[in-house]
Amino acid sequence: MTTTQPATGKLPIPEPGVSAASGQRTAMRTHLCADLRADHVGRTVSVCGWVAHRRQHGQSLTFVDLRDHSGLLQVVVDGSVDVRSEYVLRVTGTVAIRPEGTANPALATGEVELRDCAVEVLSVATPPPFPLDDRADAVDESTRLAYRYLDLRRERMQRNLRTRSAVLGAMRTVLAPLDFVEVETPLLMPSTPEGAREFIVPSRQFPGSFYALPQSPQLFKQLLMVGGTDRYFQFARCLRDEDLRADRQYEFTQLDLEMSFVDQDDVLDVISAAVLAAARAVRTDAVPPIERITWHESMNRFGVDKPDLRFDLELVELTAIFAGSGFKAFAGAEAIKGIRVPGGSAAHNRRRLDDLTTRAKSLGAKGLVWMRVGAGGALESPVAKFLSADELAGIVAATDAVEGDLLLLVADEWATTCEVLGQLRNDLGRPPAGQGPLRFVWVVDFPLFVGIDPATGRPKPGHHPFTRPHPDDIAKLESEPLAVRSRAYDLVLNGWELGSGSIRIHESALQQRIFGLLGITPEEANARFGFFLTPFGYGAPPHGGFAVGIDRLVAILAGEENIREVIAFPKTQSGLDPLTGAPTQVTDRQLRELGVRVIAPATPATPATPATPGGDRG
Amino acid sequence: MTTTQPATGKLPIPEPGVSAASGQRTAMRTHLCADLRADHVGRTVSVCGWVAHRRQHGQSLTFVDLRDHSGLLQVVVDGSVDVRSEYVLRVTGTVAIRPEGTANPALATGEVELRDCAVEVLSVATPPPFPLDDRADAVDESTRLAYRYLDLRRERMQRNLRTRSAVLGAMRTVLAPLDFVEVETPLLMPSTPEGAREFIVPSRQFPGSFYALPQSPQLFKQLLMVGGTDRYFQFARCLRDEDLRADRQYEFTQLDLEMSFVDQDDVLDVISAAVLAAARAVRTDAVPPIERITWHESMNRFGVDKPDLRFDLELVELTAIFAGSGFKAFAGAEAIKGIRVPGGSAAHNRRRLDDLTTRAKSLGAKGLVWMRVGAGGALESPVAKFLSADELAGIVAATDAVEGDLLLLVADEWATTCEVLGQLRNDLGRPPAGQGPLRFVWVVDFPLFVGIDPATGRPKPGHHPFTRPHPDDIAKLESEPLAVRSRAYDLVLNGWELGSGSIRIHESALQQRIFGLLGITPEEANARFGFFLTPFGYGAPPHGGFAVGIDRLVAILAGEENIREVIAFPKTQSGLDPLTGAPTQVTDRQLRELGVRVIAPATPATPATPATPGGDRG
Repeated sequence: MTTTQPATGKLPIPEPGVSAASGQRTAMRTHLCADLRADHVGRTVSVCGWVAHRRQHGQSLTFVDLRDHSGLLQVVVDGSVDVRSEYVLRVTGTVAIRPEGTANPALATGEVELRDCAVEVLSVATPPPFPLDDRADAVDESTRLAYRYLDLRRERMQRNLRTRSAVLGAMRTVLAPLDFVEVETPLLMPSTPEGAREFIVPSRQFPGSFYALPQSPQLFKQLLMVGGTDRYFQFARCLRDEDLRADRQYEFTQLDLEMSFVDQDDVLDVISAAVLAAARAVRTDAVPPIERITWHESMNRFGVDKPDLRFDLELVELTAIFAGSGFKAFAGAEAIKGIRVPGGSAAHNRRRLDDLTTRAKSLGAKGLVWMRVGAGGALESPVAKFLSADELAGIVAATDAVEGDLLLLVADEWATTCEVLGQLRNDLGRPPAGQGPLRFVWVVDFPLFVGIDPATGRPKPGHHPFTRPHPDDIAKLESEPLAVRSRAYDLVLNGWELGSGSIRIHESALQQRIFGLLGITPEEANARFGFFLTPFGYGAPPHGGFAVGIDRLVAILAGEENIREVIAFPKTQSGLDPLTGAPTQVTDRQLRELGVRVIAPATPATPATPATPGGDRG
Repeated sequence: MTTTQPATGKLPIPEPGVSAASGQRTAMRTHLCADLRADHVGRTVSVCGWVAHRRQHGQSLTFVDLRDHSGLLQVVVDGSVDVRSEYVLRVTGTVAIRPEGTANPALATGEVELRDCAVEVLSVATPPPFPLDDRADAVDESTRLAYRYLDLRRERMQRNLRTRSAVLGAMRTVLAPLDFVEVETPLLMPSTPEGAREFIVPSRQFPGSFYALPQSPQLFKQLLMVGGTDRYFQFARCLRDEDLRADRQYEFTQLDLEMSFVDQDDVLDVISAAVLAAARAVRTDAVPPIERITWHESMNRFGVDKPDLRFDLELVELTAIFAGSGFKAFAGAEAIKGIRVPGGSAAHNRRRLDDLTTRAKSLGAKGLVWMRVGAGGALESPVAKFLSADELAGIVAATDAVEGDLLLLVADEWATTCEVLGQLRNDLGRPPAGQGPLRFVWVVDFPLFVGIDPATGRPKPGHHPFTRPHPDDIAKLESEPLAVRSRAYDLVLNGWELGSGSIRIHESALQQRIFGLLGITPEEANARFGFFLTPFGYGAPPHGGFAVGIDRLVAILAGEENIREVIAFPKTQSGLDPLTGAPTQVTDRQLRELGVRVIAPATPATPATPATPGGDRG
């Protein structure tokens, strides 16, 4: 064995944690800008950063606010040095207390400055096209994205990048001790026409064939369970060729997870711990524990399956009050519910009430009943005259209405009543993203089927056909399919769906029974789902999983409305990258090698409707 | 604010670390199979897993080896229960000491068994097509990959998956306290014809345009530095459409990293700490510190820039001995070096020596001189008669040769002498992957240029043209370009290149000077490299980075020759996935929407030669 000595004369590399770069110290700096305080006074330090502002002080001195990612530090440099906005400097000087009366309490380093400075101009800089502070928030987004490398220098964007990194780190600290195995699944996948529209990648080795980019690692994570991996996670990069909007990019990241030999509570507990750890790592406000409600309760109380618990205005059940009512519109209704808007009477004149009625109708209601609550609980309403005194008193009692309140009632089929009032509730009360507390909620017990297909008379699956029925409802599969709950669950934060998951069907007999209900023959099942069914035939463990949408989670935690603010290099809503110009033309040689040719598209592109939703989606 | 109570009657979710799924406990099991020991005797436990083996014991009992990812446990079940190979079971029973004489010392749980068992068959199973133990190592790889979900059940594959996950985790624990920000860079990139062959993705929104999948996040990580992010890392998924081999897949993962305001030592220290932490997390043997040698020393001593330090056989410098030699083949040679093969004389008959000579010539040498060392240092060689006594004695002294050794000498241009002997050294001494200790080594001070282009008379860059020259050599850029060292460095482990990186040129004046040397006009530079030059014009910090190839690192740490053994779902060497069938045909509708058509490729695909290497590559 040769005994090579380090040829540079340096010591062997130090242990982790005591490297030369431990902390923020490097060969070029001793401190970060925002590290320095009064107790550093008298020390000679080196800092590096960008010129954020400068003020000439006569001929002799220039006051520079030097900026790095930690913040600002005032350095006093010789007036003869040419320092301009966004020049990159290395400054070595002595920490001193600022002169009486010149301290800046708004700045962490506001008590001190660096004096007797030696300045090294590391890079000169062209003036930026927009100011690198909060004023850039008003700049056109495509300009910000074209100069993303400047936009990212801003405090808001650096904070967002670091929030995202901290969220990823906090979630890992929960998963690692629970023995989750991080597995990277392939980016070059088979094409799966079952899901949403996918991106495809031509194969050079097999011209005319294509890989598809993953919409989710669903197939592979379930195969990992069949493969005995027990607990898997991955911060999975996924792609869907869907039209973009504020909360959707072509590319997204999800905490993708799957566990074997579990029931629903096991999965929910792990995900709960992970998202709470993430929230607590980056928020200073208290994060309440995660509540859990059934889909049915969510619909009844909030009218939606993504309830925003940051505000009240819950739906109040009124149906029983109108059993046998003389008012025709109420008497026959399957469900009558109302919302009480506290003090809403004065705030809603006839014009606003008409607008609400129009909105309710556009949402599918036959109409909207409004009632102003007067003195002593008297109800003023166009329909008051059709209702009995008992009915009127019953409404006031059920809603706890007091003088000045506004009541909004819908009487319709149960689903319509819930959904219309749920939308009105959100219209009237929902705070902007980033306002109010963090209210996570699990919505569980989604129905297994979402209705009967009138053409076939068969139930329509609510999720993919591998979702497990609730164990208490399996006996009702054939007799009462629409009453069968599933082991599918969603995680909701402040009214945004953060992700979804389910316990899967792992055994062939139950799977065949579900296929039978859906009218899928064994041959058809094999053709469409053989990639699952064949592996499962070799012995699949009970398993279930989840996917948390990281972009949305981070956006909400960072108080951002738009996920693009928490993505380092996002695309615009048209799918362009103004920074790099992607997508671009490629060379003829590339296309020839791949065996493809560019043609004019036959018809304008229209969004494809997924036949069945794909895997867990964050 | 509404105060929703959990509708399930469950307590709010517990804090991280005390969830119901803490440890390995779930709703279905109390322990893992391999957890149970003599001190559990008498306890009733539940375990889940697959039937690895079973032995019928008369009519009444079946002995089952139940397997989960932790290992095996013997469970004794009623003979009437139909349990077959790879059935999935949940077994609840009492831990008992095995009867006298039946303990299995080869098994961690070999002292105990589970008795009085209630067995739940969770899934039945078709018999697997190959045995799920070490015998599967001999199975054809495409069969193993087609049934990867079974292959992964094997102990070797589970160990490899967990090794990989532990490596990722250990590297993160080094980076997190150093304030590295984890940033996900885009998968849908612009096409960059400068690099290796890339995968492209047709855009539906802009038919005829394409995204490219990242060969590395080089552009984005450097823009993050321009954007003030200071320290970035990512376990980056990268793709190159290159022909596959044992150490290359279309997809690979690299620990991608970049730091601002640093010199080379800062980067090397961080990467060293990360890879040592990874090695120490998964190896039981001692991992020596990382040595550091210059490229020049590596060539002189090992003849390659990827030295394998696990074995001796260093090149010995002999040139000075033959200054003014009467032997023509030595007298004019720029460099004469030799390898001493201890005891190699007897092991190499004339036929093997002829083979070595043929190999040396095929590597570019004019010839190979061999010498057998006899008694008293006498040298037997076809050329001995042309050499003086002093020269012969000098060889013996320089090589420390003793009786029975074999000496192999090459006299040629310096680079040829080094490279030929370096290859012979590897041929003669290199152990298989996974054998011997872990010997990391940094190779630094690579030459900035790799020669003069005879057509233009200009130097050819060794790396991309943004690599920083060594600060001590900048004055020699024009006068003596081939003597200029760079701030480029490689990390090598046991003779495999784990990754590469460099300190970058961040300032325009130096960059223009390099472009000038290379004969690149400002216009051409802007056309080819504008994506860097424009951002850098706004003030770039000094920065540098690195990329560690995770697939190779994990393979070596796991003792695997082939990176496919440490990838959950690899492609075959022809780029096929025998499990999913990818790549596949896609629908006409998909192609129409994208504005592309499949045609026959004009010519058989041939590998593209990259014009200049791309970014840091792990």
